[in-house]
Amino acid sequence: MSFNTFGKFFRFTTWGESHGPAIGCVVDGCPPNVALKQEDIQKELNKRKPGQSKFTTQRKEDDKVEILSGVFEGKTTGTPISLIIYNKDMRSRDYETIKNKFRPGHADFTYFKKYGIRDYRGGGRQSARETASRVAAGAIAKKVLEKKIGKKYKVVGAVTQLGILGCDVTRWNDKEIGKNPFFCPDKKIIKLWEKYLLAIRKSGSSCGAIIEVRARGVPVGLGAPIYAKLDMDLASAMMSINAVKGVNIGSGMNSAQLTGEENSDEIISKGKNIKFKSNKAGGILGGISSGQEIIVSFAVKPTSSILSSRKTIDKFGKNTSISVKGRHDPCVGIRAVPIGEAMMHCVLLDHYLMNKAQCGN
Amino acid sequence: MSFNTFGKFFRFTTWGESHGPAIGCVVDGCPPNVALKQEDIQKELNKRKPGQSKFTTQRKEDDKVEILSGVFEGKTTGTPISLIIYNKDMRSRDYETIKNKFRPGHADFTYFKKYGIRDYRGGGRQSARETASRVAAGAIAKKVLEKKIGKKYKVVGAVTQLGILGCDVTRWNDKEIGKNPFFCPDKKIIKLWEKYLLAIRKSGSSCGAIIEVRARGVPVGLGAPIYAKLDMDLASAMMSINAVKGVNIGSGMNSAQLTGEENSDEIISKGKNIKFKSNKAGGILGGISSGQEIIVSFAVKPTSSILSSRKTIDKFGKNTSISVKGRHDPCVGIRAVPIGEAMMHCVLLDHYLMNKAQCGN
Amino acid sequence: MSFNTFGKFFRFTTWGESHGPAIGCVVDGCPPNVALKQEDIQKELNKRKPGQSKFTTQRKEDDKVEILSGVFEGKTTGTPISLIIYNKDMRSRDYETIKNKFRPGHADFTYFKKYGIRDYRGGGRQSARETASRVAAGAIAKKVLEKKIGKKYKVVGAVTQLGILGCDVTRWNDKEIGKNPFFCPDKKIIKLWEKYLLAIRKSGSSCGAIIEVRARGVPVGLGAPIYAKLDMDLASAMMSINAVKGVNIGSGMNSAQLTGEENSDEIISKGKNIKFKSNKAGGILGGISSGQEIIVSFAVKPTSSILSSRKTIDKFGKNTSISVKGRHDPCVGIRAVPIGEAMMHCVLLDHYLMNKAQCGN
Amino acid sequence: MSFNTFGKFFRFTTWGESHGPAIGCVVDGCPPNVALKQEDIQKELNKRKPGQSKFTTQRKEDDKVEILSGVFEGKTTGTPISLIIYNKDMRSRDYETIKNKFRPGHADFTYFKKYGIRDYRGGGRQSARETASRVAAGAIAKKVLEKKIGKKYKVVGAVTQLGILGCDVTRWNDKEIGKNPFFCPDKKIIKLWEKYLLAIRKSGSSCGAIIEVRARGVPVGLGAPIYAKLDMDLASAMMSINAVKGVNIGSGMNSAQLTGEENSDEIISKGKNIKFKSNKAGGILGGISSGQEIIVSFAVKPTSSILSSRKTIDKFGKNTSISVKGRHDPCVGIRAVPIGEAMMHCVLLDHYLMNKAQCGN
Repeated sequence: MSFNTFGKFFRFTTWGESHGPAIGCVVDGCPPNVALKQEDIQKELNKRKPGQSKFTTQRKEDDKVEILSGVFEGKTTGTPISLIIYNKDMRSRDYETIKNKFRPGHADFTYFKKYGIRDYRGGGRQSARETASRVAAGAIAKKVLEKKIGKKYKVVGAVTQLGILGCDVTRWNDKEIGKNPFFCPDKKIIKLWEKYLLAIRKSGSSCGAIIEVRARGVPVGLGAPIYAKLDMDLASAMMSINAVKGVNIGSGMNSAQLTGEENSDEIISKGKNIKFKSNKAGGILGGISSGQEIIVSFAVKPTSSILSSRKTIDKFGKNTSISVKGRHDPCVGIRAVPIGEAMMHCVLLDHYLMNKAQCGN
Repeated sequence: MSFNTFGKFFRFTTWGESHGPAIGCVVDGCPPNVALKQEDIQKELNKRKPGQSKFTTQRKEDDKVEILSGVFEGKTTGTPISLIIYNKDMRSRDYETIKNKFRPGHADFTYFKKYGIRDYRGGGRQSARETASRVAAGAIAKKVLEKKIGKKYKVVGAVTQLGILGCDVTRWNDKEIGKNPFFCPDKKIIKLWEKYLLAIRKSGSSCGAIIEVRARGVPVGLGAPIYAKLDMDLASAMMSINAVKGVNIGSGMNSAQLTGEENSDEIISKGKNIKFKSNKAGGILGGISSGQEIIVSFAVKPTSSILSSRKTIDKFGKNTSISVKGRHDPCVGIRAVPIGEAMMHCVLLDHYLMNKAQCGN
Repeated sequence: MSFNTFGKFFRFTTWGESHGPAIGCVVDGCPPNVALKQEDIQKELNKRKPGQSKFTTQRKEDDKVEILSGVFEGKTTGTPISLIIYNKDMRSRDYETIKNKFRPGHADFTYFKKYGIRDYRGGGRQSARETASRVAAGAIAKKVLEKKIGKKYKVVGAVTQLGILGCDVTRWNDKEIGKNPFFCPDKKIIKLWEKYLLAIRKSGSSCGAIIEVRARGVPVGLGAPIYAKLDMDLASAMMSINAVKGVNIGSGMNSAQLTGEENSDEIISKGKNIKFKSNKAGGILGGISSGQEIIVSFAVKPTSSILSSRKTIDKFGKNTSISVKGRHDPCVGIRAVPIGEAMMHCVLLDHYLMNKAQCGN
Repeated sequence: MSFNTFGKFFRFTTWGESHGPAIGCVVDGCPPNVALKQEDIQKELNKRKPGQSKFTTQRKEDDKVEILSGVFEGKTTGTPISLIIYNKDMRSRDYETIKNKFRPGHADFTYFKKYGIRDYRGGGRQSARETASRVAAGAIAKKVLEKKIGKKYKVVGAVTQLGILGCDVTRWNDKEIGKNPFFCPDKKIIKLWEKYLLAIRKSGSSCGAIIEVRARGVPVGLGAPIYAKLDMDLASAMMSINAVKGVNIGSGMNSAQLTGEENSDEIISKGKNIKFKSNKAGGILGGISSGQEIIVSFAVKPTSSILSSRKTIDKFGKNTSISVKGRHDPCVGIRAVPIGEAMMHCVLLDHYLMNKAQCGN
């Protein structure tokens, strides 16, 4: 069982509610003797932090992380690493008016029906605030993999579609991603996205997004068939992110439309190197990494917290309507980029370690 | 760890290779006192069986299942149920010519690189033959859920896209599905699909497909946030099926293109009944079932075993080419329908049981 | 995998080192709607707290616990409960002199050999300080079981042997246990134990102990054969406590010396009640609770931190000797009583919840 | 969850009832490329086989094992190894007379109360027949460890106490063990045991036993604190064996009576070698192997199937009495020796593999 724990070998357990005193996680299974400082984690958290542009929620959080255990004299010891982030800019009063109503498209309804109780303030445990813990855990996984695999190991995520506007992924440029507020890899579309999202924000509406995460330098052989396949675990990891509704590996859903000739990536050998002529597989064959770039994309639905009035019921079963005011995020998908990267790091480290044990070498 | 085990509470462990003496599985965590006979399982296996139409592989297998344990006087006892299916129509010689080559798009390459050894006959452990065990396990899960939930519980799967040809899901008709060799729910498109697939088969090529699985009568409250969400487990389950490259829940990847207004399903109360005005969520909110129909779809890539010659390497790293003769499956996706249904049953039962324990009632 | 997580369904993950800023745990799988306050946990922690009598270590710790998540308006919500206890009375300097030496009988040697690094201050992660987290988790489990089962549910632990001096368990009196510094259930032996332990303390030596934990009101049917037997999990739980070297269920190791007639507990029915004429089984048959009192006992070895000089090596492999000064605990076993009780609560709740799911009712 | 699965990484799932068509297990997580033949497993099974001497049950079983998967051309492939043993000498009629009665000291009562149904024939799933699967799995683990560690790796088990008669373990002689029907390591006591057990058998009574299992050549560093300690897993493993009621590591329960001076094993360095002056710890410190011989002992209670009439109830709650006729085992403990060895192999391989992943080297 692992309700609030992610991973099999490199595991993190998250805890905390949006408006509780703090959130945090315990990272277990981290190998010893890896250099780790607070800043390594803080750097990644800063990419996810709310309130960084007009396109994301205006909640202001420092998201300052503290390491409470598992690191001694600047190195991991192999014991659990406990991380804590105190909550600051909470306005629980904002939620008083909706505390008895279920927001359509939200987990309000299902949490209440399941547990018979929920912390409604800011979404409580449902809140995407929980993902800060994942980013922190991912920062640790990244450090470990950079040590074990070396600098060729790199994970990079980007938004490739914003609402109805896709970018051109053949123009993907890593360096562009950090320079715009959308984590967009295609310089040419940024202006258009800006106008589009401003319009959505003004209207009090919201839109979805597609995020693509690529991992380079991943060794061949990670993934354990049949039921710990690398693509299973990646699909599961991405689907666990709030508001995600679909996951693709490589050509993904589009692969249905391809022929066998188009879809299967031919293999050629050049001296000692093995090359693939294409990467429809997204770097995974039979659930095992092939050594190619691993490519995962996922769709984030539009946030359900919108200005227009929507029909719903309250917790007593009565019909009513709801309209969400206060701080507003027109496209929650944007902030999912560092989360997707973090989940990629965690899944890969998990499988990296597992692979050691599987082959017993 | 669960390399060859699926599920958390209702668990099945599969074993066996395509050309070994037998395949099978052990089902653990099945509640006691559920009526179960060999025929309950056989009936589902017959839907997956190869060689049933000219559109699927010509391998002939009875797929006759035997129950070796866990059932006493016609009822489950709560102890592990061991199932065995003997392999029959094996032509291992067919594979001699390709035993040292890696088929592009196949797991041949990654299995060999990972383990340094593989049973190449018929794909060995990589073969979709393993999925017979899943269908068997799913048949048991179905029996349990039918007893626990009642007859309103129903899972039905269908092919909704064949290669480039989608069907019209608004014409979905349960009764149609079993009447055509494609498990197609839309009567109007069948003729077209027939022509299309015959053409593909003649050319020795192959195509992909999209399968949609719907579950009705699922109680509200199944799914355990944050890391045992129902949609995580469904995504993982479907991604574990051979050749699957993408998974959608409800509006899935398309949800990126929707606005908040379009996407969030309004809730209305009619007397004691709660209704949703739409089902973009696919029956899952915040990882928990909402009581609506659960809708999952997934893409199966075209099989890589095609007639045309493809560049590849052999296990010694030399360039060569490959062209797969022998029994041929123009669209493996078709046979994924009962597998998708089985995985749906298994995931739902797993969560049904888990939910009992979570709330402790 | 569960390096720092205990339990299958009701799970707690502990973290923290003896001389780090804090220790704590995350409790996952706690059912919702159970009343829980800080004091419920504090009360149990106070029983384990060091520095309470001259017979235990003189380290002074408030062991004040804070609840960081999972409780809303005085009730559990079904989400993870994060608990933190700040460390206070740390004298890391005491450990400088032994930082490169391995204490015989301690985990110093094995931790260093395994991880190549360790936080030596106060034993770091090896320290029994970690058990405060278990006691906290156990306090939560107790609250849940008292709600689910009712007041007839009761767990009580005691020291039944102190070094070479066993007490007479036929004189076991629950009320006596809290009145003496040894958690002794037999009033008559207390004076003797006092003299004995003072002598040991004066000489700078140490002694072992046997702790017995009894659970009453446990329903029949908890425990899942074959590999989640209740006695397996109890043995594992008790063996996980620092310094424990042996575990008995019911007549335990002594059962080897009994005949079949002596050992098997006859069953009689009185009206609607089922009674057993004896309880050699310790309340567990075939790994499943029988409804009788569950009786577990375990031996705690004498602490290895003693005054006399002992031969050892340092981390460079050189022969040296060691003698431990500073705060000294002549019998660590005494403080193991609340820990044993806590582990009993946790195992029983785990199985209580599992049983709901197993039978699916 | 792992009701019928043992292990974390090297895992085996057992299935089957005493009087069903077959029993067996699926071994998962076995590293690839290890030579394995049917005889490697058969050899170990033959040591456990019933009907080998007048001191064990007269049920005649070939216990012939078949390998159904996971081995290709004489080597493991890293995929699951399915093993099957058909049941032969079943006399289900013997059990008709007791099918509605609960044998005191047996799991009859608790299985029925838990599941509401049970296969009563020969004890069904409760039967020690299940342990044949463990011995088979252990034979595989042994092969893997002999390859990975080398020939210095050796596990040897023996009976050290038979009823009230202990042997002298200082006279332990590996070679003696296989030469007598008791697996006794001490030549001098054999004659006495023979007389003693014959007397017990004649009287239709039964006696318990203590089994000790020693593992040599185990590398330092196996075991994962805090909740996957090697001693936890060994205690759990041995406690899972039918009829076991107590487990000791090293000096075990006796450690309560020792002083710190007596108990802590001094360490000395001789050139590059590290030696311990004693082994009270049984080779485990802080839950991690120290490189010393690992010593585990456990008590098996006397079988409850005895000739004398015992009070009990039937499944309708009525008082009655029972007396077990038919095939009779005066000391089931004797046959636990190969089972204890098998569990030792499995736990050690599990930790050996885990350790690879933990340190990530």
